[in-house]
Amino acid sequence: MAVYTEVSDEDLGAFVAEYGLGNVVAFKGIAEGVENSNYLLQMESATYILTLYEKRVAQEDLPFFLGLMEHLAARGIPCPTPIHGRDGQALRKLCGKPAAIVTFLQGMWPRRVLPDHCRLLGSAMAAMHLAGEDFPMSRPNDLGPKGWEALFATCVERADSVRDGLALEIRGELDLLHESWPTDLPTGIVHADLFPDNVFFLGEGLSGLIDFYFACNDFFAYELAICLNAWCFEADGSFNITKAGQMIAAYRTMRPLGEKEIAALPTLARGAAMRFLLTRLYDWLNQPQGALVRPKDPLEFLRRLRFHKNVKSADAYGIA
Amino acid sequence: MAVYTEVSDEDLGAFVAEYGLGNVVAFKGIAEGVENSNYLLQMESATYILTLYEKRVAQEDLPFFLGLMEHLAARGIPCPTPIHGRDGQALRKLCGKPAAIVTFLQGMWPRRVLPDHCRLLGSAMAAMHLAGEDFPMSRPNDLGPKGWEALFATCVERADSVRDGLALEIRGELDLLHESWPTDLPTGIVHADLFPDNVFFLGEGLSGLIDFYFACNDFFAYELAICLNAWCFEADGSFNITKAGQMIAAYRTMRPLGEKEIAALPTLARGAAMRFLLTRLYDWLNQPQGALVRPKDPLEFLRRLRFHKNVKSADAYGIA
Repeated sequence: MAVYTEVSDEDLGAFVAEYGLGNVVAFKGIAEGVENSNYLLQMESATYILTLYEKRVAQEDLPFFLGLMEHLAARGIPCPTPIHGRDGQALRKLCGKPAAIVTFLQGMWPRRVLPDHCRLLGSAMAAMHLAGEDFPMSRPNDLGPKGWEALFATCVERADSVRDGLALEIRGELDLLHESWPTDLPTGIVHADLFPDNVFFLGEGLSGLIDFYFACNDFFAYELAICLNAWCFEADGSFNITKAGQMIAAYRTMRPLGEKEIAALPTLARGAAMRFLLTRLYDWLNQPQGALVRPKDPLEFLRRLRFHKNVKSADAYGIA
Repeated sequence: MAVYTEVSDEDLGAFVAEYGLGNVVAFKGIAEGVENSNYLLQMESATYILTLYEKRVAQEDLPFFLGLMEHLAARGIPCPTPIHGRDGQALRKLCGKPAAIVTFLQGMWPRRVLPDHCRLLGSAMAAMHLAGEDFPMSRPNDLGPKGWEALFATCVERADSVRDGLALEIRGELDLLHESWPTDLPTGIVHADLFPDNVFFLGEGLSGLIDFYFACNDFFAYELAICLNAWCFEADGSFNITKAGQMIAAYRTMRPLGEKEIAALPTLARGAAMRFLLTRLYDWLNQPQGALVRPKDPLEFLRRLRFHKNVKSADAYGIA
């Protein structure tokens, strides 16, 4: 939950005047989104989301993120579309920060994940992968294996303050991951952060994929591996093979998985658990004074990593 | 900014089914309101605010607050109106906490206060005071002179950790306030927390008064005194007599002020500054671990208190 930048009425008025959407009817900070300041912006014409990009998002990446959302939305993927101003620009400045207005998506993210959610996610994910194939821009995954090393280097000395032996366990895991990480899987644009709070459902359907600010080029199957971590573990730590099976089966109806992709899933899932373990560990060890966001427990992903370590094959993920 | 309670889709679905407003279209936590959890609730029919009352609001007071909003709204005051369920109830339980759905008000609170805002506030405040006169319930002001003593007692030992000499200065001020506090001014229902973030403006008008969870019976002129503190000081600490004058003049066009009320304004303004100094001091000294809300600077109101202390008469507030 986060609003880091207070926008004055005058600044907002001048900003929206560039768009020709009519007058502001309501403007409320939204208690969601950790990286940026998000406002619900109700205009005479319709409702939008106004995002101010805070420092954690690199400015030079914004054309990629906004371009990608526009590209995907134009191909029928239910994601926010940037609105262009009268000058054609979708990205401008507000309160000294990069800012954009995007369309508002209906729906609600699932506080309790059901197998149906996983099934709907699987096919939406595959549709998104296909729709991104002709997107002309690219962006490396900063949070891939090389990024893990850089993150770990900043955490290694204090990792054991979170849990005894954590530094050594991560070091060993990283070494194994570097040895086994695949190199030749089908690659394209992935969202890379498809957690339940980034996916909206409405009625019986999936109504929105949001928050593309980690999107990058990586293995398509790595996205599935992230979602196995993000959607298929229960609160008690147990793995729900029904949810996983439905997600993967629905994915395959839209985009078939090759044998190599399936064989790599346990390794990719370990890597995905490592990625979130490390970013959460970093946030845990670097809580700013007066932070408005409670950091999430990194050890949750240590437990998931250990689960994947014990997996013998992708069968454990319910692949039929 | 605050969402303290996560509401699951199932709980929300069961809750709104009691109202007959159609299905949920969107549901987003709002980063406003310190005391309660507020959600924007978009239904097929219209947009509402769903509030879960957290522990700082006494449950036994909720019928007063909700009844007052309904009373005022029925008399044309632009405030949220509680929605009644099919069983007639406006107050029910969600996630084990008292909860209510109220109407959504358009507009935006002013991040930078202009004299026009103060003028519009003055007349809306007087209209609210008049509209509350036939409200049948009553509630004492817990944060009046007696409440200040109780608050001070919990802070006195640590007050000097915030500023050297603070405990002694507050003690002296409290003694003076007890001696000079008026007893026979016109009394009625006051909002008691009319800060800029509780007042919405839209176009050229005032579109909403929100957050009635401090409302109580007290001197009408005390509300004006609170607003002198809340609206008429600039960021540099200076007092803006133009804003004060416009607020009071607009108030008097709707509800005339008696001589005693005018004469008491400097004392009431000192008391109002004391009230916010003490509650902010309390919050400053009692920050919960992992708090989601940054406490506000108590000393801001010490400076305002000192300003009012040096005021010789209500002329200093721009009374024509």
